[in-house]
Amino acid sequence: MQDCVFCKIVAGNMPCCKVWEDKQTIAFMDIAPLVKGHTLVIPKKHYDPFTAAPLEVLTACMQTVQRVMHALRVSLGADGVNLHQANGAAAGQVVPHLHFHVVPRFADDGHHWNWNAKSYASAEAMQQMANRIKEHIEEA
Amino acid sequence: MQDCVFCKIVAGNMPCCKVWEDKQTIAFMDIAPLVKGHTLVIPKKHYDPFTAAPLEVLTACMQTVQRVMHALRVSLGADGVNLHQANGAAAGQVVPHLHFHVVPRFADDGHHWNWNAKSYASAEAMQQMANRIKEHIEEA
Repeated sequence: MQDCVFCKIVAGNMPCCKVWEDKQTIAFMDIAPLVKGHTLVIPKKHYDPFTAAPLEVLTACMQTVQRVMHALRVSLGADGVNLHQANGAAAGQVVPHLHFHVVPRFADDGHHWNWNAKSYASAEAMQQMANRIKEHIEEA
Repeated sequence: MQDCVFCKIVAGNMPCCKVWEDKQTIAFMDIAPLVKGHTLVIPKKHYDPFTAAPLEVLTACMQTVQRVMHALRVSLGADGVNLHQANGAAAGQVVPHLHFHVVPRFADDGHHWNWNAKSYASAEAMQQMANRIKEHIEEA
């Protein structure tokens, strides 16, 4: 897709530090890492958002994510790893081409996700929300 | 797996507000939501971490994630949605059974991921890190 930074990277019209490439995906360093070693996994073909990608494309991405996670643990000695993906500006998405953040984590890396968990007013309130969601889950 | 909270939920020995179930996965409300509507997608079979799961199990999870994302947008009018997954205590993982957080996002939801991006000292430093990771990416 024209004007898509990630499509330019896929096409070789923009540089990147690539760590993996196969038929459907590439993985390369995020130039603005949350933690050093932070890697992006993307499908070569342009999809956005997550729900627009065919399942077999997501499968190919997951296989590359597994490879990258393994490599981050072995090469950097990461204590853990996060997978993160955003859809829409409200979710923090910046580049509108499906991409998965694979972030190596270390006990002392200083990053925290700001996991500010809330609660429901009651069990009934939670069940009502579940019912609303359930109503719209497609059997597709 | 004995003593695994999510295995107990799968077995029906612990309550949950389920929104989806199929042969390989279930989706249910996170009782401590980052944003109301926050849903967990898990494989019924116990795997941990992400790299231990067979690709076909991840595919089944991704399909359920797509269903949940769609439902969150339609039922709650979410402006966006995040997918998040943690491996290891250093990454913020609490329950050691593979699970995907699907978090509906709204322009005014007050959540932020604390996206405190860093930088590499130089292009060479980034390339060196990429080389280390690349060395350990398995062709499996």
